[in-house]
Amino acid sequence: MLSHSETLQRATDACRTRQHWSAFAETPSSKLHGEQAPIDGQQAFERQLGKPFELDQPGETGRLGKEISPYTQQALGIDYPAVDVEVLCQAALKAMRQWQTVDPNKRALIGVEMLRALEAQLFENSHATMHTAGQSFMMGFVGSGANSLDRGLEALVYGHKAMTDLPATALWHKPFGAHTVALEKRYHFVPRGIALVICCASFPAWNAYPAIMANLVTGNPVVLKPHPGGILPMAISVRALREVLLRHNIDPNLITLAADTRDAPIAGQFLDRSDVGIVDFTGSQRFGSWLEQNVRNKRVYTETSGVNSVVIESTNDLDGMVDAIAHSLCLFSAQMCTSPQNIHLPRQGIASDQGHISAAEVAERIVARVEDRASNPAKAAAICGALQSDATLQMLAGLQKNAESAGKVLRASGPYEHPDYPQARTATPLIIEAADPGHEALLQEHFGPASFIITHDSAEAALASAAAAALQCGAIATHVYSSDRAFQDNAEQAFVAAGASTTFNLSGPMPLNYAAAYSDLHVTGLNPAGNACLTDLAFVCDRFRMVQARWPQGSR
Amino acid sequence: MLSHSETLQRATDACRTRQHWSAFAETPSSKLHGEQAPIDGQQAFERQLGKPFELDQPGETGRLGKEISPYTQQALGIDYPAVDVEVLCQAALKAMRQWQTVDPNKRALIGVEMLRALEAQLFENSHATMHTAGQSFMMGFVGSGANSLDRGLEALVYGHKAMTDLPATALWHKPFGAHTVALEKRYHFVPRGIALVICCASFPAWNAYPAIMANLVTGNPVVLKPHPGGILPMAISVRALREVLLRHNIDPNLITLAADTRDAPIAGQFLDRSDVGIVDFTGSQRFGSWLEQNVRNKRVYTETSGVNSVVIESTNDLDGMVDAIAHSLCLFSAQMCTSPQNIHLPRQGIASDQGHISAAEVAERIVARVEDRASNPAKAAAICGALQSDATLQMLAGLQKNAESAGKVLRASGPYEHPDYPQARTATPLIIEAADPGHEALLQEHFGPASFIITHDSAEAALASAAAAALQCGAIATHVYSSDRAFQDNAEQAFVAAGASTTFNLSGPMPLNYAAAYSDLHVTGLNPAGNACLTDLAFVCDRFRMVQARWPQGSR
Repeated sequence: MLSHSETLQRATDACRTRQHWSAFAETPSSKLHGEQAPIDGQQAFERQLGKPFELDQPGETGRLGKEISPYTQQALGIDYPAVDVEVLCQAALKAMRQWQTVDPNKRALIGVEMLRALEAQLFENSHATMHTAGQSFMMGFVGSGANSLDRGLEALVYGHKAMTDLPATALWHKPFGAHTVALEKRYHFVPRGIALVICCASFPAWNAYPAIMANLVTGNPVVLKPHPGGILPMAISVRALREVLLRHNIDPNLITLAADTRDAPIAGQFLDRSDVGIVDFTGSQRFGSWLEQNVRNKRVYTETSGVNSVVIESTNDLDGMVDAIAHSLCLFSAQMCTSPQNIHLPRQGIASDQGHISAAEVAERIVARVEDRASNPAKAAAICGALQSDATLQMLAGLQKNAESAGKVLRASGPYEHPDYPQARTATPLIIEAADPGHEALLQEHFGPASFIITHDSAEAALASAAAAALQCGAIATHVYSSDRAFQDNAEQAFVAAGASTTFNLSGPMPLNYAAAYSDLHVTGLNPAGNACLTDLAFVCDRFRMVQARWPQGSR
Repeated sequence: MLSHSETLQRATDACRTRQHWSAFAETPSSKLHGEQAPIDGQQAFERQLGKPFELDQPGETGRLGKEISPYTQQALGIDYPAVDVEVLCQAALKAMRQWQTVDPNKRALIGVEMLRALEAQLFENSHATMHTAGQSFMMGFVGSGANSLDRGLEALVYGHKAMTDLPATALWHKPFGAHTVALEKRYHFVPRGIALVICCASFPAWNAYPAIMANLVTGNPVVLKPHPGGILPMAISVRALREVLLRHNIDPNLITLAADTRDAPIAGQFLDRSDVGIVDFTGSQRFGSWLEQNVRNKRVYTETSGVNSVVIESTNDLDGMVDAIAHSLCLFSAQMCTSPQNIHLPRQGIASDQGHISAAEVAERIVARVEDRASNPAKAAAICGALQSDATLQMLAGLQKNAESAGKVLRASGPYEHPDYPQARTATPLIIEAADPGHEALLQEHFGPASFIITHDSAEAALASAAAAALQCGAIATHVYSSDRAFQDNAEQAFVAAGASTTFNLSGPMPLNYAAAYSDLHVTGLNPAGNACLTDLAFVCDRFRMVQARWPQGSR
């Protein structure tokens, strides 16, 4: 096991070179973790069911919590502290004042230790993620585990870099005429204030860990506001982080949990406060845009959603392409910000390594490869997981019912039979052939396993349509399949202009959705899919400000 | 002479160590510049008077310009292009697209060359600055010359650092099960769009040069909107910068001038446009705050103004302290964002190296040292310069007339006789003893040579009052005189909490106003004096965004 400072150094190197690295194990294998860890994790989760979640933080005014497992569709029966916002914020500010005195290098090392503490509770947290977000256990362990922890470490690296860009002190000599003035200077790094981190329900860790790390290393206390439907994974994380702080005799109120319910949302109370200096938001584009437009005098960082496109011009690997697209339509029932929705191709079909393929056949092949996964309960369970929310079922039903207005249903959605959880809220992919590439249904995100196959007069028109949608509606991950170099170059330019990151010709074991910490930039800030990028300097370096003091050398 | 890359490297080193360095000569001495350069510069300025200023830029719809020299109070008689905003912006966007293809390292070197071109026209520009801003020739040469150019180079360094934080491309390998996926990645740096740089009248270069450099190196075209009263220095700069671009076969519309008049302000037309992505503003707190609160979907960087304080608790160098304060009250007639306004001290007086000194005597000594400068026309001309605007005369008259409501006039303001320009708009410092430390006149900036001496029940109360004013009204430079270590520490904490940078016990040849590029942080962003700092990473790193493309290794 690397020391914390070695971990920080290796992560820093990876951010610089953009090469692959991970500080965390991507497998729950008991060969790595031992036989007991998986059992302990599961038991810890099960022991918590039906009981109050104890979190020794100030300002508890009652209890709340109404989480439903997407797998059992039963209430978890866990309650959490309801908080007095004033008391919680005062406690956070007190913790901030102590934390401000901790050297940035030490903060960063404590940050690494915090991530290790989150790693240590991954088995428990993966069950919690499964039974709130609907992720499969494996996705909970890898995607909400190692991959999210790496993104947290990446943000820690950037925050640390920004905090150490200046020396803490300097000695300055300058001649003024015949005299030389010598001044000592001290640079104070001042946090912006309380950081409210608002999480989404389906994949909270992936954005929460970077936001937590970015805020803590730059000196800001964090109030974590989980989605009402996904409190448990974040509560477990907050508990683990507070324990690390206590071990270092640091005020644990540097991170607290502010859970709420759908009926009584609490975020507005924080937004009204001047001591809240930062908002990190992951969730709907509507609320994200509202925050960007309306929250003044705070720094607002958003990751929302968009309409991700796949543009197919041609391929040298038809089977690989079809399989990769089909997999991505199934993966976690397309409840990821990187899931594709709109598949654009020329009406006349495409050239491929298997000869000319008609548009209809491309669609048929995608449907068939989806079917292969959806019709096999064990595969479906591993890949699709469950639906986080009933709203997704309603969205699917609505789209299916009105499909004739948009086009033709190529593949209907329906539940699959989960082998372990017969009550699981499941839905296999709905695939619609769009009649009109200009239909309004194509210009909105349908959160969940719904996709459109859209034909155009030409590949160029397909590309233009996808790029226009990215600029107008936002896009986080776009894909292009083309064996034509000129088309690839045009596509790269078009998506750069639309502010959408693009992957070309991806097939094989890496899912289309995969974005690697330390290497892949997630969200550009150039279209409505969000204003913040995981992780660039802009994500961290305005979370603190600097104030200077100077005096003649030796006079203090 | 250093090469451009050596200059960039030396400046980068200075930013890192925060030690003194300068790329530019701080003296107009003909020993350095030769006998001819000063003559040529003056003649170039004089030749321009009464003539159209030729700037070969697109969208000229007419001519405008109503500048008045503060020294002669005569119209300069120069007119400038009136611009068609649409045409100008389209030209800027076209230039941006070409500039985007230029490597960031090359951009940075061209940036250094641009600063050298500005240096080469410093003699001419110093006369222009003198006859628009009212600065003395020497301040025009040093403050609006070398000091401003160094701040520009500093911003260039930070922008270059942010633009080279990531490699342009990367090769990434990651095992997925038994397979290894190898991807090539390319990171595109995308500018935000047109940067509107709005300048102030009294010291335009000091903020314009950093904003220009920060924007250009990060890929954004600049439209410079000078103050209607101070067009000429910026027009000369824009002309020089466009010549550098032309030399490199780069579209000169990367920087253009959008002059206007008080009667027909033009900034709003740019603010309404979605292709304007950045606003850099220097000027009044009222307009700056309006921009911060109301301009959405653009990045807004402001430096406005505040109420700068001096807190006197005690001193080991009474004469030095008094002289430093008096000098700063006179320097450029206190028309600088770093000029002190409110001088706080305990009612019972202070301990000093000359024994106990009453509050009244501190005030008398400051007045006497001001008098020494104000009553000597040659000194006054060199130090005070002239008033940029008639509004400052009106402010002084108003304050003087209503002085009894705020306290007592210790020193009345009046014109001094400028030895070279009998018609110069001059005013020596007005000094008022405030009767009530809570008077509203103390909680606003009086732009120009007006200051208050304010006594409090204790030194602690003096400090608390100054810090509260900084937090409420903004402050850019605060000063503390104290030989007591505990008081110094309290003051440092109090001003850090108020977001105001502080200098302790400064006397001698360096004016209180002096802020050094590469070393001193100018504006904190923590109080109403502005949201941007010269220069930190936050000033540059959100002026561009990044978009990624990736593909299987070797497939393109």
